[in-house]
Amino acid sequence: MNCDVLIIGGGVLGFSSAYYLKDWMPRKKIVVIDKLGGPGQGNSAKSEGAFRNVFSSKTNFLLADSTIDAFDHFQRNNGFNLNMNKLGYLWLFNDTQYQKLESVFKHMTEMGVETQILNKVKERVPGLVTQFDDEESSILDLPPVNIGVKGVKCGSIDADSLVRYYEQEFLRKGGEVYYNTEALNLLLEPETPLGIPGEPFIWQDTEIKGAKTKVGEIRANTTILALGVWSQKILNPIGIDGMMRPKKRHIFVFKHPNLDNLFKVKNLNDYEALPLTILPKSGVYLKAEISEKSIWVGCADNLGRKFGLEDDPQPELDYYIDNIYHILVAYLPCFKDLRPTNMWAGQYAINSFDGSPVVESIPGFVYVGAVSGSGIMKSDALGRITAAACIEESTAPLFGEREIKVSDLGITKRNVEREEFII
Amino acid sequence: MNCDVLIIGGGVLGFSSAYYLKDWMPRKKIVVIDKLGGPGQGNSAKSEGAFRNVFSSKTNFLLADSTIDAFDHFQRNNGFNLNMNKLGYLWLFNDTQYQKLESVFKHMTEMGVETQILNKVKERVPGLVTQFDDEESSILDLPPVNIGVKGVKCGSIDADSLVRYYEQEFLRKGGEVYYNTEALNLLLEPETPLGIPGEPFIWQDTEIKGAKTKVGEIRANTTILALGVWSQKILNPIGIDGMMRPKKRHIFVFKHPNLDNLFKVKNLNDYEALPLTILPKSGVYLKAEISEKSIWVGCADNLGRKFGLEDDPQPELDYYIDNIYHILVAYLPCFKDLRPTNMWAGQYAINSFDGSPVVESIPGFVYVGAVSGSGIMKSDALGRITAAACIEESTAPLFGEREIKVSDLGITKRNVEREEFII
Repeated sequence: MNCDVLIIGGGVLGFSSAYYLKDWMPRKKIVVIDKLGGPGQGNSAKSEGAFRNVFSSKTNFLLADSTIDAFDHFQRNNGFNLNMNKLGYLWLFNDTQYQKLESVFKHMTEMGVETQILNKVKERVPGLVTQFDDEESSILDLPPVNIGVKGVKCGSIDADSLVRYYEQEFLRKGGEVYYNTEALNLLLEPETPLGIPGEPFIWQDTEIKGAKTKVGEIRANTTILALGVWSQKILNPIGIDGMMRPKKRHIFVFKHPNLDNLFKVKNLNDYEALPLTILPKSGVYLKAEISEKSIWVGCADNLGRKFGLEDDPQPELDYYIDNIYHILVAYLPCFKDLRPTNMWAGQYAINSFDGSPVVESIPGFVYVGAVSGSGIMKSDALGRITAAACIEESTAPLFGEREIKVSDLGITKRNVEREEFII
Repeated sequence: MNCDVLIIGGGVLGFSSAYYLKDWMPRKKIVVIDKLGGPGQGNSAKSEGAFRNVFSSKTNFLLADSTIDAFDHFQRNNGFNLNMNKLGYLWLFNDTQYQKLESVFKHMTEMGVETQILNKVKERVPGLVTQFDDEESSILDLPPVNIGVKGVKCGSIDADSLVRYYEQEFLRKGGEVYYNTEALNLLLEPETPLGIPGEPFIWQDTEIKGAKTKVGEIRANTTILALGVWSQKILNPIGIDGMMRPKKRHIFVFKHPNLDNLFKVKNLNDYEALPLTILPKSGVYLKAEISEKSIWVGCADNLGRKFGLEDDPQPELDYYIDNIYHILVAYLPCFKDLRPTNMWAGQYAINSFDGSPVVESIPGFVYVGAVSGSGIMKSDALGRITAAACIEESTAPLFGEREIKVSDLGITKRNVEREEFII
C-alpha cells in the first residue's frame, strides 16, 4: 500500500495528528494503523483522564492550556460528549512543602496559570485529617495538611471519548484506519536507491519511506510514529532515542457508600465532587469520577519503580494494600478497610531530562512522544505540532490563535524549560 | 562485606573516581568491583583513545581541557607512560560545511579553544584527494576538501595505560579492587528499616545501601555506578534513567607500507604523523597510532546504527568493505585494496539530549555516565566530580585550580549547554 502519510499508533496522539493533517490537507491519503482492534486501546485507555494547565514550563503551560480550550470547544460547539468536568486539582501541602514551591507558584501565576490558595482546606474536604499525633502516622512520617492550592483550569475528561472524537472526525473527513495492523519496523532507505544489496550504506542520504507491518509494507512520503511507550521498540533499530522510558502506573477504583462524602465537597467546583487531589505524601492522588460515582486512586511513585516495557501490565493489589492504603486512610479515614472494586495498570512515558514532550523530525519521519499522562492533556497541541512538522511548517497553530515553534520540541534544537511541577 | 564507598565498574571512570576519593579520604575503605578480570577491560579497552578540547559547550570544554592538563601532568611529573601524543585533530570540510560551523568555531575560540585554519590542506597531507570529478565520487556525493581546521590541544592516549595509571595509584594509596565480581543489582532499602516483608514501601524514605554481587552482598555508605553502557541494566530496576544509550562503534587497524606517507605529514605535529583526521563525509575518521606505526580507522555513524546493549560486540568486516572503504579510498587512495590487519568493536554511550556527561546523585548513590568516547578524554574531571558528589561537596576541584558545580552535571538541576560539535 502507498499513502501520503502513515501514522503508526491509534492512540490519542496518533489520531489528533491524523485529524489535523487531514483537516489541513483533505486530498492527501492519510492512514492510521494500530496493532489493537480499536482506537486508544493502548495506554490512552488506561489513563487517569485528568487535565491541568498548572505547569511551570512555559511550553507545557501553552500545550496544556490551549488543549483544554480545544476540549471545551469540542464539547460545547461540536456537541460531542467528552465527559469533561472542570473538577479542579487540589494540591495539599504542609508549610515546608508549600514554601519550597512558593516561587514556582508565583512564576506560574505570572504566566497566566490560575490557582487559588486555600487556607482552611479541612473545612472544604469532608473528613480530611490534617494533623497527626498517633504512632502509626509517625512511622509513616505523614506531613500535616497546612495549605491547599487549587488549580482552576483543571479536571477530568474521558480519554476514550476523546480518542474516539479525533478518530471519528478523521474518518468523517475521509481518513483511513487499519486496526489489527502492527508495525514491525521503519523502512530506512536511500533517497536514491542503487539496487545494491546492503543498502543503505553510510555514504547514502537516507529517509524513512514507510513501515513494514505484519500484513505487508506500507510506503509513505512521511511516517509518523505515535506509539507512546512502545515507540522506542521501533526507534531502536534505526538508533534514535525518543527520550521516553516506560514505567507502570496504577488506577484503583472504589465505589462504596462510605465514600459518599467525597461527592459532597463544598465550594471547590460545580459538581460538589472531590477535585483531583494530591496528598502531601509519596505522590498518592485521587479524584471523583462523576459519571460512575466512583473514586479513582493512583500514585506517582518514582524511585524503586522499574523501567521496563510491558505489553499488558498487570495491576498489583498488594501495591494498594501495602503502600497506598496506609497513606490514603490516614488522610481520608473513609477508605478504612475498603478494597478496590476495579483496578488496572498502564505505562507512563517518563522523560527524566526535562519532563516535556518531544516532536522530532528526520527526513520522511516525525516522532511524537508525550510525557507522564501529558499525552491526553496536551493532545490537541501535540497533534497540531506533529502535523505541522509533517508538512515542514516551522510554526504550528494552536487552538485559540496561539502558536509554537515546531523545533522547540525537537531534540536537536530543543528549547523548553525543565518542568519543575511534576506530580 | 562492608565498606565506605563501593564503586561498580573498573573502567576509566570507576578508577578515576576511586583514585580521587581515596586521595581525599585516605582512611576510608574504598572498594572497586568489576565483572571482568582486570582494569578497563570493558569499553575503555576498545576506545579510540583520542582526546580533544574542541567542544562548543563550556562544560565539555572545561571537562576535557582540564583532563588533558591532568594527563600532561601524569606523564611528565609522575613519569607514567600514557603513550600520550599531541597529534592534533584535523577536520576536513568543504566550504558549505565550514560556513555552517564558522560561528561555532568563533564561539570556541572565544572560550579558549585553540584551533588553526589550514587553507592549503592538500599540501599538508601527502596523497590527500581534495577534488572529485569521476562518476563513483558523484554517486558517493563526496564533498571536496576546501579547508582544514586543526585542533591543537588534541591527540591520542593509550586508554589501557590510563586506566592502569588510576588503578595503580588507587591501589598504592590502599584502595581495594575485586575483579570477577559482577554487580547484579543495587540495594535500595528504607533509611529506617522496620523488618516487614515487602520493604521499601512508598511511604518510606529510601537510600542505596550497596549492591548484590555474584559473590554476595557488599554494603556501602555510598555506592558509585560507573558501568558505562551497562549502567542502565543496574538503573532499570530502580527506575532511574541514566540518559545514555549504547551504540556499536568500530576500530579497523591497518599496517602496510602503502600507508608510510601518513607518517610523513609535515608541519602538523611533532611526530610527522597523521592527526586524528575527520573526513568531510559520513563521520569517517582515522589517526596514526605512532606506537605501532599503524593507522586506526573508525566511523561515527548514527542514523541506522541500532541502539542495543551487547556484552561482546563483534566487528563487522563488511561494514568496512561496503561502507567506510569507499569514502576512505576516495580521499586517501593509499588505502586502495587494503584490508584491516586487526579490528574490534566497542559501544559508545549516546546522550542524544545534550551530548554531555551526567553525574547524578540520590541518597547513598552517585551515577556517572559519559558520552561517546568522552569517558576517556574527560575522565580526570569526571572522576573528581563523582568523588565530590560522593562526599556531598557542591563544587569539584578540577586539575589546574579550576572548579565546577557538581549539580551542573546532574539531571534534576542540569546546567549544560547542548554540545554543537559532535563528530
